[in-house]
Amino acid sequence: MCQLLGMNCNVPTDICFSFTGFRARGGLTDVHRDGWGIAFFEGRGARLFLDPQPSAQSPIAELVHNYPIRSRNVIAHIRKATQGQVSLENTHPFMRELWGRHWIFAHNGNLLDFDPPLDGLYLPVGNTDSERAFCWLLQSLRRRFGQTPPPPEALFQALLELTREVGRHGECNYLLSNGERLFAHCSNQLTYLIRQAPFRKAHLKDQDVTVDFADITTPDDRVAVIATQPLTDDEHWITLPPGSLWWFENGQVISHGETVPGPVKGACRQNGG
Amino acid sequence: MCQLLGMNCNVPTDICFSFTGFRARGGLTDVHRDGWGIAFFEGRGARLFLDPQPSAQSPIAELVHNYPIRSRNVIAHIRKATQGQVSLENTHPFMRELWGRHWIFAHNGNLLDFDPPLDGLYLPVGNTDSERAFCWLLQSLRRRFGQTPPPPEALFQALLELTREVGRHGECNYLLSNGERLFAHCSNQLTYLIRQAPFRKAHLKDQDVTVDFADITTPDDRVAVIATQPLTDDEHWITLPPGSLWWFENGQVISHGETVPGPVKGACRQNGG
Repeated sequence: MCQLLGMNCNVPTDICFSFTGFRARGGLTDVHRDGWGIAFFEGRGARLFLDPQPSAQSPIAELVHNYPIRSRNVIAHIRKATQGQVSLENTHPFMRELWGRHWIFAHNGNLLDFDPPLDGLYLPVGNTDSERAFCWLLQSLRRRFGQTPPPPEALFQALLELTREVGRHGECNYLLSNGERLFAHCSNQLTYLIRQAPFRKAHLKDQDVTVDFADITTPDDRVAVIATQPLTDDEHWITLPPGSLWWFENGQVISHGETVPGPVKGACRQNGG
Repeated sequence: MCQLLGMNCNVPTDICFSFTGFRARGGLTDVHRDGWGIAFFEGRGARLFLDPQPSAQSPIAELVHNYPIRSRNVIAHIRKATQGQVSLENTHPFMRELWGRHWIFAHNGNLLDFDPPLDGLYLPVGNTDSERAFCWLLQSLRRRFGQTPPPPEALFQALLELTREVGRHGECNYLLSNGERLFAHCSNQLTYLIRQAPFRKAHLKDQDVTVDFADITTPDDRVAVIATQPLTDDEHWITLPPGSLWWFENGQVISHGETVPGPVKGACRQNGG
Protein backbone atom coordinates (compact mmCIF):
# COMPACT_ATOMS: atom_id res chain seq x y z
CA MET A 1 0.00 0.00 0.00
CA CYS A 2 1.09 3.52 -0.73
CA GLN A 3 0.44 6.39 1.60
CA LEU A 4 -1.18 9.77 1.04
CA LEU A 5 -0.70 13.13 2.73
CA GLY A 6 -2.78 16.21 2.06
CA MET A 7 -3.04 19.67 3.55
CA ASN A 8 -5.73 22.31 3.06
CA CYS A 9 -5.52 25.66 4.87
CA ASN A 10 -7.14 29.07 5.09
CA VAL A 11 -3.73 30.80 4.91
CA PRO A 12 -0.52 29.67 3.19
CA THR A 13 1.17 27.25 5.57
CA ASP A 14 4.30 25.14 5.34
CA ILE A 15 4.03 21.38 5.61
CA CYS A 16 7.55 20.78 6.97
CA PHE A 17 6.39 19.19 10.26
CA SER A 18 3.97 16.71 8.71
CA PHE A 19 6.35 15.98 5.85
CA THR A 20 9.12 15.11 8.30
CA GLY A 21 7.08 12.22 9.66
CA PHE A 22 5.54 11.23 6.34
CA ARG A 23 8.88 11.17 4.56
CA ALA A 24 10.32 8.75 7.11
CA ARG A 25 7.79 6.14 5.98
CA GLY A 26 9.48 6.10 2.58
CA GLY A 27 12.30 3.74 3.51
CA LEU A 28 13.08 4.56 7.14
CA THR A 29 10.14 3.66 9.42
CA ASP A 30 8.12 1.94 6.71
CA VAL A 31 8.44 0.22 3.35
CA HIS A 32 7.22 2.77 0.80
CA ARG A 33 10.53 2.95 -1.06
CA ASP A 34 9.35 3.12 -4.67
CA GLY A 35 9.35 6.85 -5.21
CA TRP A 36 7.55 9.84 -3.81
CA GLY A 37 6.20 13.18 -4.84
CA ILE A 38 4.66 16.35 -3.49
CA ALA A 39 2.71 19.19 -5.11
CA PHE A 40 2.29 22.68 -3.70
CA PHE A 41 -0.22 25.16 -5.02
CA GLU A 42 0.78 28.80 -4.78
CA GLY A 43 -2.02 30.93 -6.13
CA ARG A 44 -2.89 29.44 -9.51
CA GLY A 45 0.59 28.02 -9.91
CA ALA A 46 1.73 24.58 -8.82
CA ARG A 47 5.13 23.18 -7.95
CA LEU A 48 5.51 19.46 -8.38
CA PHE A 49 8.52 17.62 -6.97
CA LEU A 50 8.87 14.01 -8.09
CA ASP A 51 11.55 11.46 -7.36
CA PRO A 52 11.60 7.71 -8.05
CA GLN A 53 14.08 7.37 -5.15
CA PRO A 54 12.89 6.56 -1.61
CA SER A 55 11.82 9.75 0.15
CA ALA A 56 13.95 8.94 3.21
CA GLN A 57 17.11 9.20 1.07
CA SER A 58 16.01 11.61 -1.67
CA PRO A 59 17.98 14.88 -2.01
CA ILE A 60 14.80 16.49 -3.30
CA ALA A 61 12.94 15.39 -0.16
CA GLU A 62 15.77 16.93 1.86
CA LEU A 63 15.18 20.21 0.05
CA VAL A 64 11.41 20.09 0.65
CA HIS A 65 12.09 19.24 4.30
CA ASN A 66 14.35 22.27 4.77
CA TYR A 67 12.69 24.81 2.49
CA PRO A 68 9.39 26.03 3.93
CA ILE A 69 7.16 26.46 0.88
CA ARG A 70 3.89 28.02 2.03
CA SER A 71 0.79 26.72 0.35
CA ARG A 72 -2.95 26.43 0.93
CA ASN A 73 -3.23 23.07 -0.83
CA VAL A 74 -0.61 20.34 -0.76
CA ILE A 75 -0.75 16.71 -1.93
CA ALA A 76 2.03 14.20 -1.27
CA HIS A 77 2.44 10.48 -1.96
CA ILE A 78 4.95 7.75 -1.13
CA ARG A 79 4.81 4.64 -3.25
CA LYS A 80 5.06 0.93 -2.60
CA ALA A 81 4.71 -0.67 -6.00
CA THR A 82 3.87 -4.35 -6.32
CA GLN A 83 3.08 -4.15 -10.04
CA GLY A 84 4.14 -1.47 -12.51
CA GLN A 85 7.77 -0.44 -12.72
CA VAL A 86 9.41 2.14 -10.50
CA SER A 87 9.91 5.11 -12.82
CA LEU A 88 9.44 8.83 -12.94
CA GLU A 89 6.36 8.65 -15.15
CA ASN A 90 4.64 6.34 -12.63
CA THR A 91 5.45 8.57 -9.66
CA HIS A 92 2.50 10.35 -8.03
CA PRO A 93 1.11 13.00 -7.80
CA PHE A 94 0.00 13.47 -11.40
CA MET A 95 -0.78 16.87 -12.89
CA ARG A 96 -3.06 17.99 -15.72
CA GLU A 97 -4.81 21.22 -16.67
CA LEU A 98 -8.58 21.60 -16.75
CA TRP A 99 -10.54 24.87 -17.15
CA GLY A 100 -7.33 26.89 -16.95
CA ARG A 101 -6.26 25.44 -13.61
CA HIS A 102 -3.76 22.80 -12.66
CA TRP A 103 -5.26 19.67 -11.08
CA ILE A 104 -3.22 17.37 -8.90
CA PHE A 105 -4.09 13.76 -8.08
CA ALA A 106 -2.54 11.04 -5.94
CA HIS A 107 -3.99 7.57 -5.37
CA ASN A 108 -3.60 4.75 -2.93
CA GLY A 109 -5.24 1.48 -3.90
CA ASN A 110 -5.70 -1.13 -6.58
CA LEU A 111 -8.02 -0.80 -9.52
CA LEU A 112 -8.79 -4.00 -11.34
CA ASP A 113 -10.00 -4.09 -14.92
CA PHE A 114 -10.32 -0.34 -14.99
CA ASP A 115 -9.83 0.38 -18.65
CA PRO A 116 -12.44 2.94 -19.69
CA PRO A 117 -12.33 4.43 -23.17
CA LEU A 118 -10.22 7.58 -23.15
CA ASP A 119 -11.02 9.96 -25.96
CA GLY A 120 -7.62 11.64 -26.03
CA LEU A 121 -8.43 14.73 -23.97
CA TYR A 122 -6.30 13.29 -21.19
CA LEU A 123 -4.04 10.29 -21.73
CA PRO A 124 -1.76 8.56 -19.24
CA VAL A 125 1.97 9.07 -19.75
CA GLY A 126 2.91 6.11 -17.55
CA ASN A 127 1.17 2.78 -17.07
CA THR A 128 -0.49 2.93 -13.66
CA ASP A 129 -4.17 2.43 -12.97
CA SER A 130 -3.93 5.58 -10.89
CA GLU A 131 -3.03 7.92 -13.73
CA ARG A 132 -5.66 6.23 -15.91
CA ALA A 133 -8.30 6.90 -13.24
CA PHE A 134 -7.18 10.53 -13.02
CA CYS A 135 -7.40 10.97 -16.80
CA TRP A 136 -10.84 9.41 -16.81
CA LEU A 137 -12.05 11.66 -13.99
CA LEU A 138 -10.93 14.82 -15.78
CA GLN A 139 -12.25 13.63 -19.13
CA SER A 140 -15.60 12.90 -17.49
CA LEU A 141 -15.73 16.34 -15.87
CA ARG A 142 -14.93 17.95 -19.23
CA ARG A 143 -17.61 15.93 -20.98
CA ARG A 144 -20.18 16.75 -18.32
CA PHE A 145 -19.53 20.47 -17.92
CA GLY A 146 -17.90 21.44 -21.22
CA GLN A 147 -15.62 24.43 -21.23
CA THR A 148 -17.11 26.17 -18.19
CA PRO A 149 -16.20 25.12 -14.67
CA PRO A 150 -19.36 24.29 -12.69
CA PRO A 151 -20.30 25.76 -9.31
CA PRO A 152 -18.45 23.91 -6.51
CA GLU A 153 -21.56 22.04 -5.37
CA ALA A 154 -22.16 20.64 -8.84
CA LEU A 155 -18.50 19.69 -9.09
CA PHE A 156 -18.71 17.83 -5.80
CA GLN A 157 -21.84 15.96 -6.87
CA ALA A 158 -20.18 14.97 -10.12
CA LEU A 159 -17.10 13.73 -8.27
CA LEU A 160 -19.32 11.67 -5.98
CA GLU A 161 -20.92 9.95 -8.96
CA LEU A 162 -17.67 9.44 -10.83
CA THR A 163 -15.89 8.13 -7.75
CA ARG A 164 -18.64 5.55 -7.29
CA GLU A 165 -17.87 4.34 -10.80
CA VAL A 166 -14.14 4.07 -10.17
CA GLY A 167 -14.74 2.49 -6.76
CA ARG A 168 -16.46 -0.47 -8.41
CA HIS A 169 -13.04 -1.55 -9.63
CA GLY A 170 -11.26 -1.71 -6.30
CA GLU A 171 -9.59 0.36 -3.64
CA CYS A 172 -9.47 4.00 -4.52
CA ASN A 173 -8.28 6.26 -1.75
CA TYR A 174 -7.34 9.51 -3.41
CA LEU A 175 -6.54 13.19 -2.95
CA LEU A 176 -7.48 15.68 -5.66
CA SER A 177 -7.04 19.45 -5.74
CA ASN A 178 -7.23 22.32 -8.19
CA GLY A 179 -5.66 24.80 -5.80
CA GLU A 180 -9.00 26.15 -4.61
CA ARG A 181 -10.25 23.11 -2.68
CA LEU A 182 -9.11 19.63 -1.85
CA PHE A 183 -11.17 16.47 -2.26
CA ALA A 184 -10.30 13.37 -0.26
CA HIS A 185 -11.83 10.00 -0.99
CA CYS A 186 -11.68 7.25 1.60
CA SER A 187 -12.15 3.88 0.02
CA ASN A 188 -10.86 1.98 3.05
CA GLN A 189 -8.14 3.99 4.80
CA LEU A 190 -7.86 7.72 5.40
CA THR A 191 -7.75 9.93 8.50
CA TYR A 192 -7.74 13.67 9.12
CA LEU A 193 -7.56 16.34 11.78
CA ILE A 194 -8.06 20.08 11.85
CA ARG A 195 -5.63 22.28 13.73
CA GLN A 196 -7.09 25.58 14.89
CA ALA A 197 -6.98 27.87 17.95
CA PRO A 198 -6.28 27.14 20.71
CA PHE A 199 -3.13 25.60 19.21
CA ARG A 200 -1.02 23.15 21.22
CA LYS A 201 1.96 20.88 20.90
CA ALA A 202 2.12 17.84 18.64
CA HIS A 203 4.61 14.99 18.49
CA LEU A 204 5.34 12.91 15.40
CA LYS A 205 4.85 9.15 15.44
CA ASP A 206 7.70 8.42 13.03
CA GLN A 207 10.35 10.82 14.32
CA ASP A 208 11.03 12.22 17.77
CA VAL A 209 10.01 15.72 16.77
CA THR A 210 7.64 18.02 18.65
CA VAL A 211 6.23 21.33 17.46
CA ASP A 212 4.23 23.82 19.51
CA PHE A 213 1.85 25.23 16.92
CA ALA A 214 0.99 28.08 19.32
CA ASP A 215 4.45 29.48 18.56
CA ILE A 216 4.09 29.53 14.79
CA THR A 217 0.44 30.32 14.11
CA THR A 218 -1.99 33.19 14.43
CA PRO A 219 -5.37 32.69 16.12
CA ASP A 220 -7.24 32.71 12.80
CA ASP A 221 -5.17 29.96 11.14
CA ARG A 222 -6.95 26.75 10.30
CA VAL A 223 -5.21 23.72 8.79
CA ALA A 224 -6.73 20.39 7.76
CA VAL A 225 -4.25 17.53 7.45
CA ILE A 226 -5.36 14.33 5.73
CA ALA A 227 -3.21 11.19 5.87
CA THR A 228 -3.48 7.46 5.28
CA GLN A 229 -2.41 6.88 8.88
CA PRO A 230 -2.13 9.41 11.72
CA LEU A 231 1.16 11.32 11.67
CA THR A 232 1.19 12.33 15.36
CA ASP A 233 0.66 10.28 18.51
CA ASP A 234 -0.85 12.96 20.77
CA GLU A 235 -3.61 14.45 18.62
CA HIS A 236 -7.10 13.22 17.82
CA TRP A 237 -7.20 11.93 14.25
CA ILE A 238 -10.62 11.21 12.80
CA THR A 239 -10.93 8.00 10.82
CA LEU A 240 -12.98 8.61 7.68
CA PRO A 241 -15.71 6.06 7.00
CA PRO A 242 -15.05 3.74 4.06
CA GLY A 243 -16.87 4.89 0.95
CA SER A 244 -16.91 8.61 1.65
CA LEU A 245 -15.79 11.67 -0.29
CA TRP A 246 -14.78 14.83 1.60
CA TRP A 247 -14.58 18.41 0.40
CA PHE A 248 -12.04 20.54 2.27
CA GLU A 249 -11.76 24.28 1.77
CA ASN A 250 -10.10 26.97 3.89
CA GLY A 251 -9.02 24.33 6.38
CA GLN A 252 -12.47 22.96 7.11
CA VAL A 253 -14.91 20.37 5.87
CA ILE A 254 -17.47 21.94 3.54
CA SER A 255 -19.35 18.79 2.65
CA HIS A 256 -19.08 15.02 2.44
CA GLY A 257 -21.03 12.24 0.82
CA GLU A 258 -21.21 8.51 0.40
CA THR A 259 -19.63 6.76 -2.51
CA VAL A 260 -21.01 3.33 -1.69
CA PRO A 261 -19.55 1.31 -4.50
CA GLY A 262 -21.01 -1.70 -6.16
CA PRO A 263 -19.31 -5.03 -5.51
CA VAL A 264 -15.57 -4.82 -6.02
CA LYS A 265 -14.58 -6.67 -9.17
CA GLY A 266 -12.12 -9.51 -8.84
CA ALA A 267 -9.25 -9.90 -6.43
CA CYS A 268 -6.72 -7.39 -5.21
CA ARG A 269 -4.11 -6.20 -7.67
CA GLN A 270 -1.66 -3.48 -6.81
CA ASN A 271 -0.54 -1.37 -9.65
CA GLY A 272 -0.43 2.38 -9.42
CA GLY A 273 -0.81 2.64 -5.66
CA MET B 1 14.76 39.74 -22.38
CA CYS B 2 14.61 36.30 -20.85
CA GLN B 3 17.15 33.63 -21.61
CA LEU B 4 16.75 30.04 -22.75
CA LEU B 5 18.88 26.97 -22.23
CA GLY B 6 18.25 23.59 -23.82
CA MET B 7 20.12 20.31 -24.00
CA ASN B 8 19.50 17.33 -26.27
CA CYS B 9 21.72 14.22 -26.05
CA ASN B 10 22.07 10.68 -27.30
CA VAL B 11 22.66 9.38 -23.76
CA PRO B 12 21.35 10.71 -20.43
CA THR B 13 23.67 13.56 -19.45
CA ASP B 14 23.69 15.99 -16.55
CA ILE B 15 23.46 19.71 -17.26
CA CYS B 16 25.28 20.85 -14.11
CA PHE B 17 28.12 22.61 -15.97
CA SER B 18 25.92 24.62 -18.33
CA PHE B 19 23.41 25.33 -15.58
CA THR B 20 26.16 26.79 -13.39
CA GLY B 21 26.79 29.53 -15.91
CA PHE B 22 23.17 29.97 -16.94
CA ARG B 23 21.98 30.26 -13.35
CA ALA B 24 24.42 33.09 -12.64
CA ARG B 25 22.60 35.23 -15.20
CA GLY B 26 19.54 35.14 -12.96
CA GLY B 27 20.61 37.92 -10.60
CA LEU B 28 24.39 37.58 -10.40
CA THR B 29 26.03 38.32 -13.75
CA ASP B 30 22.84 39.49 -15.45
CA VAL B 31 19.40 40.89 -14.73
CA HIS B 32 17.02 37.96 -15.21
CA ARG B 33 15.76 38.00 -11.63
CA ASP B 34 12.06 37.31 -12.12
CA GLY B 35 11.98 33.59 -11.64
CA TRP B 36 13.42 30.57 -13.35
CA GLY B 37 12.59 26.99 -14.15
CA ILE B 38 14.05 23.81 -15.56
CA ALA B 39 12.48 20.61 -16.90
CA PHE B 40 14.24 17.26 -17.20
CA PHE B 41 12.83 14.36 -19.18
CA GLU B 42 13.67 10.91 -17.88
CA GLY B 43 12.13 8.32 -20.15
CA ARG B 44 8.51 9.36 -20.56
CA GLY B 45 8.50 11.13 -17.21
CA ALA B 46 9.34 14.78 -16.64
CA ARG B 47 10.58 16.68 -13.63
CA LEU B 48 9.79 20.36 -13.56
CA PHE B 49 11.43 22.68 -11.05
CA LEU B 50 9.97 26.18 -10.89
CA ASP B 51 10.80 29.08 -8.64
CA PRO B 52 9.68 32.71 -8.86
CA GLN B 53 12.87 33.66 -6.96
CA PRO B 54 16.05 34.69 -8.82
CA SER B 55 17.99 31.57 -9.85
CA ALA B 56 21.24 32.95 -8.40
CA GLN B 57 19.68 32.84 -4.90
CA SER B 58 17.11 30.05 -5.24
CA PRO B 59 17.49 27.03 -2.93
CA ILE B 60 15.90 24.93 -5.66
CA ALA B 61 18.55 26.10 -8.13
CA GLU B 62 21.16 25.15 -5.56
CA LEU B 63 19.68 21.64 -5.49
CA VAL B 64 19.65 21.38 -9.29
CA HIS B 65 23.23 22.66 -9.35
CA ASN B 66 24.41 19.99 -6.89
CA TYR B 67 22.22 17.04 -7.87
CA PRO B 68 23.25 15.59 -11.23
CA ILE B 69 19.96 14.59 -12.84
CA ARG B 70 20.74 12.76 -16.08
CA SER B 71 18.43 13.49 -18.96
CA ARG B 72 18.36 13.38 -22.75
CA ASN B 73 16.19 16.49 -23.06
CA VAL B 74 16.35 19.51 -20.79
CA ILE B 75 14.75 22.95 -21.11
CA ALA B 76 15.53 25.83 -18.75
CA HIS B 77 14.49 29.49 -18.61
CA ILE B 78 15.37 32.56 -16.58
CA ARG B 79 12.90 35.39 -16.66
CA LYS B 80 13.11 39.15 -16.91
CA ALA B 81 9.52 40.33 -16.83
CA THR B 82 8.63 43.79 -18.02
CA GLN B 83 4.90 43.13 -18.09
CA GLY B 84 2.97 40.39 -16.31
CA GLN B 85 3.48 39.81 -12.61
CA VAL B 86 6.24 37.69 -11.14
CA SER B 87 4.41 34.58 -9.94
CA LEU B 88 4.67 30.83 -10.00
CA GLU B 89 1.98 30.42 -12.65
CA ASN B 90 3.89 32.74 -15.00
CA THR B 91 7.19 30.95 -14.52
CA HIS B 92 8.54 29.01 -17.50
CA PRO B 93 8.86 26.25 -18.64
CA PHE B 94 5.22 25.26 -19.05
CA MET B 95 4.04 21.67 -19.20
CA ARG B 96 1.03 20.00 -20.82
CA GLU B 97 0.21 16.50 -22.02
CA LEU B 98 -0.46 15.66 -25.67
CA TRP B 99 -0.78 12.15 -27.18
CA GLY B 100 0.20 10.56 -23.87
CA ARG B 101 3.46 12.47 -23.56
CA HIS B 102 4.48 15.48 -21.54
CA TRP B 103 5.40 18.53 -23.60
CA ILE B 104 7.60 21.28 -22.22
CA PHE B 105 7.81 24.83 -23.60
CA ALA B 106 9.84 27.91 -22.74
CA HIS B 107 9.74 31.21 -24.61
CA ASN B 108 11.86 34.29 -24.95
CA GLY B 109 10.25 37.21 -26.70
CA ASN B 110 7.24 39.46 -26.97
CA LEU B 111 4.02 38.56 -28.70
CA LEU B 112 1.74 41.44 -29.46
CA ASP B 113 -2.00 41.03 -30.02
CA PHE B 114 -1.65 37.28 -29.94
CA ASP B 115 -5.07 36.25 -28.74
CA PRO B 116 -6.21 33.32 -30.85
CA PRO B 117 -9.42 31.50 -29.97
CA LEU B 118 -8.67 28.65 -27.59
CA ASP B 119 -11.28 25.91 -27.64
CA GLY B 120 -10.57 24.68 -24.12
CA LEU B 121 -8.33 21.72 -24.95
CA TYR B 122 -5.43 23.69 -23.51
CA LEU B 123 -5.95 26.87 -21.52
CA PRO B 124 -3.36 29.11 -19.89
CA VAL B 125 -3.19 28.99 -16.11
CA GLY B 126 -1.23 32.25 -15.86
CA ASN B 127 -1.44 35.37 -17.99
CA THR B 128 1.65 35.37 -20.19
CA ASP B 129 1.65 35.49 -23.95
CA SER B 130 4.12 32.63 -23.77
CA GLU B 131 1.76 30.13 -22.16
CA ARG B 132 -1.00 31.26 -24.52
CA ALA B 133 1.26 30.55 -27.50
CA PHE B 134 2.10 27.11 -26.09
CA CYS B 135 -1.58 26.27 -25.59
CA TRP B 136 -2.36 27.40 -29.12
CA LEU B 137 0.50 25.32 -30.56
CA LEU B 138 -0.70 22.15 -28.83
CA GLN B 139 -4.33 22.82 -29.67
CA SER B 140 -3.37 23.32 -33.30
CA LEU B 141 -1.39 20.07 -33.37
CA ARG B 142 -4.35 18.23 -31.85
CA ARG B 143 -6.73 19.74 -34.36
CA ARG B 144 -4.45 18.88 -37.24
CA PHE B 145 -3.52 15.32 -36.31
CA GLY B 146 -6.35 14.22 -34.04
CA GLN B 147 -5.63 11.53 -31.49
CA THR B 148 -2.69 9.95 -33.30
CA PRO B 149 0.78 11.45 -33.14
CA PRO B 150 2.09 12.10 -36.65
CA PRO B 151 5.44 10.89 -38.02
CA PRO B 152 8.24 13.21 -36.88
CA GLU B 153 8.65 14.78 -40.33
CA ALA B 154 4.97 15.75 -40.43
CA LEU B 155 5.20 17.11 -36.91
CA PHE B 156 8.16 19.26 -37.89
CA GLN B 157 6.37 20.61 -40.97
CA ALA B 158 3.35 21.46 -38.85
CA LEU B 159 5.52 23.24 -36.30
CA LEU B 160 7.15 25.24 -39.10
CA GLU B 161 3.75 26.43 -40.32
CA LEU B 162 2.40 27.14 -36.84
CA THR B 163 5.55 28.98 -35.78
CA ARG B 164 5.24 31.23 -38.82
CA GLU B 165 1.77 32.15 -37.57
CA VAL B 166 2.96 32.94 -34.06
CA GLY B 167 6.01 34.76 -35.42
CA ARG B 168 3.76 37.31 -37.10
CA HIS B 169 2.99 38.67 -33.65
CA GLY B 170 6.53 39.39 -32.52
CA GLU B 171 9.65 37.83 -31.14
CA CYS B 172 9.26 34.16 -30.48
CA ASN B 173 12.45 32.35 -29.59
CA TYR B 174 11.36 29.09 -28.03
CA LEU B 175 12.39 25.60 -26.96
CA LEU B 176 9.88 22.76 -27.14
CA SER B 177 10.32 19.08 -26.31
CA ASN B 178 8.23 15.97 -25.76
CA GLY B 179 11.15 13.98 -24.39
CA GLU B 180 11.91 12.35 -27.75
CA ARG B 181 13.25 15.37 -29.58
CA LEU B 182 13.81 19.06 -29.00
CA PHE B 183 12.70 21.86 -31.28
CA ALA B 184 14.42 25.24 -31.09
CA HIS B 185 13.06 28.30 -32.80
CA CYS B 186 15.27 31.30 -33.38
CA SER B 187 13.26 34.41 -33.91
CA ASN B 188 16.18 36.76 -33.39
CA GLN B 189 18.61 35.30 -30.83
CA LEU B 190 19.68 31.69 -30.27
CA THR B 191 23.00 29.85 -30.48
CA TYR B 192 24.06 26.22 -30.22
CA LEU B 193 27.01 23.88 -30.21
CA ILE B 194 27.46 20.13 -30.35
CA ARG B 195 29.97 18.47 -28.06
CA GLN B 196 31.25 15.15 -29.33
CA ALA B 197 34.53 13.21 -29.54
CA PRO B 198 37.26 14.31 -29.39
CA PHE B 199 36.13 16.06 -26.23
CA ARG B 200 38.14 18.92 -24.77
CA LYS B 201 38.05 21.50 -22.00
CA ALA B 202 35.48 24.29 -21.78
CA HIS B 203 35.40 27.39 -19.61
CA LEU B 204 32.23 29.21 -18.56
CA LYS B 205 31.73 32.88 -19.42
CA ASP B 206 29.75 33.68 -16.29
CA GLN B 207 31.73 31.78 -13.67
CA ASP B 208 35.40 30.85 -13.47
CA VAL B 209 34.66 27.15 -13.94
CA THR B 210 36.39 24.79 -16.35
CA VAL B 211 35.41 21.23 -17.18
CA ASP B 212 37.39 18.76 -19.23
CA PHE B 213 34.68 16.79 -20.98
CA ALA B 214 37.22 14.13 -21.95
CA ASP B 215 37.19 13.10 -18.28
CA ILE B 216 33.45 12.60 -17.96
CA THR B 217 32.29 11.31 -21.34
CA THR B 218 32.56 8.21 -23.48
CA PRO B 219 33.60 8.46 -27.15
CA ASP B 220 30.04 7.87 -28.36
CA ASP B 221 28.44 10.67 -26.35
CA ARG B 222 26.92 13.54 -28.27
CA VAL B 223 25.37 16.58 -26.64
CA ALA B 224 23.70 19.57 -28.26
CA VAL B 225 23.46 22.67 -26.09
CA ILE B 226 21.20 25.52 -27.20
CA ALA B 227 21.31 28.89 -25.45
CA THR B 228 20.23 32.47 -25.99
CA GLN B 229 23.86 33.54 -25.62
CA PRO B 230 27.00 31.38 -25.59
CA LEU B 231 27.72 29.90 -22.17
CA THR B 232 31.44 29.28 -22.68
CA ASP B 233 34.21 31.57 -23.96
CA ASP B 234 36.49 28.95 -25.56
CA GLU B 235 34.11 26.92 -27.74
CA HIS B 236 32.64 27.65 -31.14
CA TRP B 237 28.95 28.53 -30.74
CA ILE B 238 26.90 28.66 -33.91
CA THR B 239 24.52 31.59 -34.22
CA LEU B 240 21.18 30.43 -35.60
CA PRO B 241 19.77 32.54 -38.41
CA PRO B 242 16.71 34.62 -37.48
CA GLY B 243 13.50 32.93 -38.58
CA SER B 244 14.64 29.33 -38.39
CA LEU B 245 13.30 26.24 -36.62
CA TRP B 246 15.70 23.46 -35.65
CA TRP B 247 14.96 19.83 -34.89
CA PHE B 248 17.48 18.22 -32.49
CA GLU B 249 17.48 14.51 -31.73
CA ASN B 250 20.15 12.27 -30.21
CA GLY B 251 22.46 15.25 -29.85
CA GLN B 252 22.44 16.27 -33.50
CA VAL B 253 20.52 18.39 -35.96
CA ILE B 254 18.03 16.30 -37.90
CA SER B 255 16.45 19.09 -39.90
CA HIS B 256 15.83 22.81 -39.98
CA GLY B 257 13.59 25.15 -41.89
CA GLU B 258 12.71 28.77 -42.40
CA THR B 259 9.89 30.41 -40.51
CA VAL B 260 10.05 33.70 -42.37
CA PRO B 261 7.30 35.59 -40.65
CA GLY B 262 5.08 38.24 -42.07
CA PRO B 263 5.60 41.80 -40.88
CA VAL B 264 5.72 41.99 -37.09
CA LYS B 265 2.59 43.63 -35.78
CA GLY B 266 3.02 46.74 -33.67
CA ALA B 267 5.82 47.68 -31.37
CA CYS B 268 7.75 45.65 -28.86
CA ARG B 269 5.89 44.55 -25.75
CA GLN B 270 7.47 42.24 -23.25
CA ASN B 271 5.10 40.00 -21.42
CA GLY B 272 5.82 36.36 -20.98
CA GLY B 273 9.44 36.44 -21.96
